[in-house]
Amino acid sequence: MDKPKKGALDGLRVIDLTRVLSGPFCTAILADLGADVIKIEPPKGDPVRGQGTIRDGHSWYFANFNRNKKSVVIDLYSTDGKDILRQLLSTADVVVENFRPGTMDKLGLGTSALKALNPRLITASVNGYGTDGPYADRPAFDFVVQAMSGFMSVNGDDGAAAMRAAPPMTDLVAGVYAATGILAAVRSRDITGQGQPVEVSMMNGIISMMAYLATEYFATGQLPQRTGNDHPLVAPYGLYRVADGEVAIAPSNDVILKRFFDAIDLGWVLDDPRFDTNDKRFGKRPELQKLIEARLGAQTKDHWIKVLNAAGVPCGRVQDFDQVFADPQVQAQQMALDVDYPGRGPVRMLGFPIKLGATPCVMARPSPELGEHTTEVLRDNGLTDTQIARLRDEGVIGGS
Amino acid sequence: MDKPKKGALDGLRVIDLTRVLSGPFCTAILADLGADVIKIEPPKGDPVRGQGTIRDGHSWYFANFNRNKKSVVIDLYSTDGKDILRQLLSTADVVVENFRPGTMDKLGLGTSALKALNPRLITASVNGYGTDGPYADRPAFDFVVQAMSGFMSVNGDDGAAAMRAAPPMTDLVAGVYAATGILAAVRSRDITGQGQPVEVSMMNGIISMMAYLATEYFATGQLPQRTGNDHPLVAPYGLYRVADGEVAIAPSNDVILKRFFDAIDLGWVLDDPRFDTNDKRFGKRPELQKLIEARLGAQTKDHWIKVLNAAGVPCGRVQDFDQVFADPQVQAQQMALDVDYPGRGPVRMLGFPIKLGATPCVMARPSPELGEHTTEVLRDNGLTDTQIARLRDEGVIGGS
Repeated sequence: MDKPKKGALDGLRVIDLTRVLSGPFCTAILADLGADVIKIEPPKGDPVRGQGTIRDGHSWYFANFNRNKKSVVIDLYSTDGKDILRQLLSTADVVVENFRPGTMDKLGLGTSALKALNPRLITASVNGYGTDGPYADRPAFDFVVQAMSGFMSVNGDDGAAAMRAAPPMTDLVAGVYAATGILAAVRSRDITGQGQPVEVSMMNGIISMMAYLATEYFATGQLPQRTGNDHPLVAPYGLYRVADGEVAIAPSNDVILKRFFDAIDLGWVLDDPRFDTNDKRFGKRPELQKLIEARLGAQTKDHWIKVLNAAGVPCGRVQDFDQVFADPQVQAQQMALDVDYPGRGPVRMLGFPIKLGATPCVMARPSPELGEHTTEVLRDNGLTDTQIARLRDEGVIGGS
Repeated sequence: MDKPKKGALDGLRVIDLTRVLSGPFCTAILADLGADVIKIEPPKGDPVRGQGTIRDGHSWYFANFNRNKKSVVIDLYSTDGKDILRQLLSTADVVVENFRPGTMDKLGLGTSALKALNPRLITASVNGYGTDGPYADRPAFDFVVQAMSGFMSVNGDDGAAAMRAAPPMTDLVAGVYAATGILAAVRSRDITGQGQPVEVSMMNGIISMMAYLATEYFATGQLPQRTGNDHPLVAPYGLYRVADGEVAIAPSNDVILKRFFDAIDLGWVLDDPRFDTNDKRFGKRPELQKLIEARLGAQTKDHWIKVLNAAGVPCGRVQDFDQVFADPQVQAQQMALDVDYPGRGPVRMLGFPIKLGATPCVMARPSPELGEHTTEVLRDNGLTDTQIARLRDEGVIGGS
């Protein structure tokens, strides 16, 4: 582990009732930023502990999403379990859950109950479709939300089917937005003294990322067309064949476009009446591609990536994970971390995307064993060892 | 506009030097949350003012990404312009830029200069590849970063080419992460009195979203395979034909899987030795799909979506934007907003994904005209009307 250091969110106590993906991603971001995240798990643990490849006795998927957190096992179906949770919430800054709407009410932890318990508490929900509206009660899953949100409808090849993205983008986007919303509510609470509910749904999160595809739809009433790896409006743009493969090239404005053509000795193209506007180039894409590839085909990926980047033209290889994690830039940015798990050997996981100059994200602790911090946290919260032993005997709490 | 109301980030002053997409998305999130975002534009304005469909005299793309901000025109190539900017930064909480690394130094606004000017200032950079490492100077563009990050490598059909997502995910993800990092730094600054640099790159942001695809790769050393709209490990999962189209169905665990088969009168499947484990089902996907579609084909999308959701099985339609924005849930969540632009007619734009109970995001002001707030902001900052008139005459500032 890195040496202990105060993170940006040092002292912010987060009670984390989430499991699986969207919620744990939100609280992992807060934990990476230095918050004291206490993951409350049922006696059987977060299901992700048993998901993905189990190596050296644990799930690397779980390890990635639950680093920097503590684990406390509480049976929330028991009366005593609910009491302990209420006690933890009475002194916390934030609670995060990703249950289906209504579950917190059933636990006696609805908005007004929590407000009465701790008016400074920020109560965050990461859910599928939002707590209001006709789908509030629907179960959600990334693939279904990708389908319903319109995200799939814009991805994929022209004339082919709508295409999901393989990473669970709707979970992840909701998780980051929730972290943002929570921190905004913390700032507000630090000034006003009042906590408040924060909610982000997977559906709303991904819809908000439809960007210019949505604004163009709103402005024109025309549905966006699927265009695969081509730009719907701009040419040249896309993947181009070179001597040893393909290069992704995206000249993003007219100045850069001129640099691109100059760099490949096709400076005349922009003066040629066949190609002197984007509309004309777009209409003659195959012809243009042929011209460009006639030049590019003479040299390798490495050559063109060097030459075009030097000319200020955005370009790069299509990389698979072998190439990504061997990439010198990705290594310089420490986007894969080898985290030591004493007694188990190292786990490789994704690095920190948020780089802070003075209080950087660090690996302060590896993902916890199930209930590893039950005793420690409950003691800190004022329970005596006798009480803790009784609760453990009765199966209300678990772990060590 | 909604009636004025204090947002969560009320009083947080953000000087916004960003243009185009990743940076403006970051500052739009902060502005939606109530921060006082002052967009500094060159005399010609953010290029996005001229991009996308121009309707009623302005770009709806610009309107969406720049709502709730003020616009001040300053020529930062001039000495006086740099002085004005430094003055604005001396009293600000946050500055955000998405220049290529090194540009701030050229403006005399490198990290140490800004620290000397205002030690409380949080200095945020949203960039392509990070400020350290061999690619720090490369120009970036969403498509290229999708290619280089491995994101494209996991998307698309089995046996077909790597596939980008059409929305500019690498810009947008970097923007939300940057907002998160800035708010963490604000929390830290409010406690310690010290600002700090915050950096998020498009490359690091999207790599951090490779989730279990990356953790499985790390754990096994095997590259993820492209599987189109199918799950790489789980069956059943995917799009299924019904009487009038397709339904996306994702039974997310064994309990829900049983509910799914029971709901379509195929309860026996899970007891059949051909299908009683996920591995067996995965190996017999075509056979299983035939069985399932034989049931589902008898009824419509609406029927199955109602029945399966009632049974707790995540499912839904593949919706295009027409369907998305007519969807009663999307409407209930106000994910499209019609914003009045006096004298120009309404602009439709995307709604707020972060829902706060006490200090909700509101449309406090539409996107600004170029330089609409130059005089107002400079006056607030202590410049006299005589000074302002002189600077305008000299072309150092612009707008009204």
